[in-house]
Amino acid sequence: MFDRFPDGFQALIQGASRGIGLECVRQLLAEPRVGRVYATARRPERAERLQALADEHPERLVVLRLDVADEASIDDAAATVAARSPRLHLLFNVAGLLHDEHGMAPEKRLHDVRLENLEKSFRVNAFGPLLVARAFAQLLCHREHAVLANMSARVGSIGDNGLGGWYAYRGAKAAQNMFTRGIAVELGRRSRTLICVALHPGTTDTALSEPFQARVPEGKLFTREYTVSRLFTVIDGLSPEASGSFLAWDGQAIPW
Amino acid sequence: MFDRFPDGFQALIQGASRGIGLECVRQLLAEPRVGRVYATARRPERAERLQALADEHPERLVVLRLDVADEASIDDAAATVAARSPRLHLLFNVAGLLHDEHGMAPEKRLHDVRLENLEKSFRVNAFGPLLVARAFAQLLCHREHAVLANMSARVGSIGDNGLGGWYAYRGAKAAQNMFTRGIAVELGRRSRTLICVALHPGTTDTALSEPFQARVPEGKLFTREYTVSRLFTVIDGLSPEASGSFLAWDGQAIPW
Ligand SMILES: NC(=O)c1ccc[n+]([C@@H]2O[C@H](COP(=O)([O-])OP(=O)(O)OC[C@H]3O[C@@H](n4cnc5c(N)ncnc54)[C@H](OP(=O)(O)O)[C@@H]3O)[C@@H](O)[C@H]2O)c1
Ligand SMILES: NC(=O)c1ccc[n+]([C@@H]2O[C@H](COP(=O)([O-])OP(=O)(O)OC[C@H]3O[C@@H](n4cnc5c(N)ncnc54)[C@H](OP(=O)(O)O)[C@@H]3O)[C@@H](O)[C@H]2O)c1
Repeated sequence: MFDRFPDGFQALIQGASRGIGLECVRQLLAEPRVGRVYATARRPERAERLQALADEHPERLVVLRLDVADEASIDDAAATVAARSPRLHLLFNVAGLLHDEHGMAPEKRLHDVRLENLEKSFRVNAFGPLLVARAFAQLLCHREHAVLANMSARVGSIGDNGLGGWYAYRGAKAAQNMFTRGIAVELGRRSRTLICVALHPGTTDTALSEPFQARVPEGKLFTREYTVSRLFTVIDGLSPEASGSFLAWDGQAIPW
Repeated sequence: MFDRFPDGFQALIQGASRGIGLECVRQLLAEPRVGRVYATARRPERAERLQALADEHPERLVVLRLDVADEASIDDAAATVAARSPRLHLLFNVAGLLHDEHGMAPEKRLHDVRLENLEKSFRVNAFGPLLVARAFAQLLCHREHAVLANMSARVGSIGDNGLGGWYAYRGAKAAQNMFTRGIAVELGRRSRTLICVALHPGTTDTALSEPFQARVPEGKLFTREYTVSRLFTVIDGLSPEASGSFLAWDGQAIPW
């Protein structure tokens, strides 16, 4: 696993307090080729399972505060990483937002659209990963193999949208996809070895999908373990030509 | 022209103070089948050329205040229209923003990305047309032929993005495209006769394109008159199966 990456490579998981992001950290720590894992959370003090992992791996896991909705926290985290690691080999923007405890929920119809929720969704799902890429670009552009992955979602595919609804989430993931594509073009000029992709994890058993799991066909809801092992297999198999594409957990391309 | 629309049909051009939007109003007024034109501007008192048209056509042209970045103004405009017209047959969201006099300009590279400019661009180019669709949906869903068109841009095509840069504008137009697609699906369930599309006008001689016109090949910069006549030809030729698509001034489909 991770054979294309240099031995002792440096990874950063953005959005690692729980869900798929936390499981990414767990699986990276189990991988001997990984030198150091930076794991970010917007409220590290509340991320107990992440802190427990840091206690187990004090040498290899570094927990940092990063709230994608707080620009300064992104730049601070990048400066902290730059002070410790001359380069990063994997940066995975995992944080995402579909619903929250303040009444934000995916819109069933146009009538449910709220400007406030559009702003929240775009801040976390689209602007966040772009500002992270801006802050960490320098650390990712070098001559060793490197991957910048942004967590998208199949419902962020415009061409695939046959159901409607979910405006704030779908629109933000589509914007994120555009950003991923632009970043792939721009950073591709600065580094021949950096690959930038948008990934769809498949419907996975987390707090994000929880209210919608009843609709998922029997046996089609992935465990976090399965999802992350599939996503890492996709990341591991990426060749330079894949940069700028939108791929599902099984490696299949998804239309924009 | 406009043969599929009922005689005396009611049209609304959102963003009609100048540029392509103003020219849309002018060409609609020259069309005898058009009953009434609503033309919106965020500062109608400063839209002198629009006001001059209203003086010439006091019976057919109604100027309304609508700032797409001001939700209440959208809902107010919809209420005013609903009080005068039981249904609308053409709503064209034309307003758009690429650069402004406060230093907002399309980003050459990631380094130039500013959260404030992302917010401005998405507010006008993406959230605005969605909130307009929410407010006017009721007036557009009926049994007569009707078109909801959102002005997109070829640079809002994710698949076509081979140059990078222009993050705020590209991302917002991609999000707008997702919204157009979702609106087409949702309103398609409420009306069999409403067609919703995203349109690319071609590079047109307006204040928006002005700083970038030097790059346009000789003879490829459209006049506003030409652009609007081509866009109206596309709108006029739309059949129900076209709903949910992204079309250029020449009727060709653009990839998402
Ligand atoms: N689960 C699925 O079926 C599914 C399907 C398609 C795509 N996805 C995508 O996969 C990614 C992970 O989702 P998940 O299912 O693991 O969801 P989750 O369990 O709800 O976890 C969401 C994560 O995002 C973090 N987050 C939210 N807002 C943040 C902010 N402002 N700054 C930093 N972090 C923030 C959360 O941190 P806190 O603990 O601080 O809230 C949490 O770590 C998301 O991008 C999601 O859109 C998931
Ligand atoms: N020109 C091109 O080459 C080109 C190419 C591709 C796509 N487009 C798209 O075509 C559309 C029209 O552009 P244009 O070339 O005619 O540009 P323009 O001459 O710069 O006109 C822009 C229009 O948008 C309005 N607007 C801006 N912010 C607004 C807001 N908050 N609320 C309401 N209206 C607002 C402006 O009103 P004010 O007068 O109040 O500022 C003006 O009427 C835009 O959506 C643009 O993205 C243009």
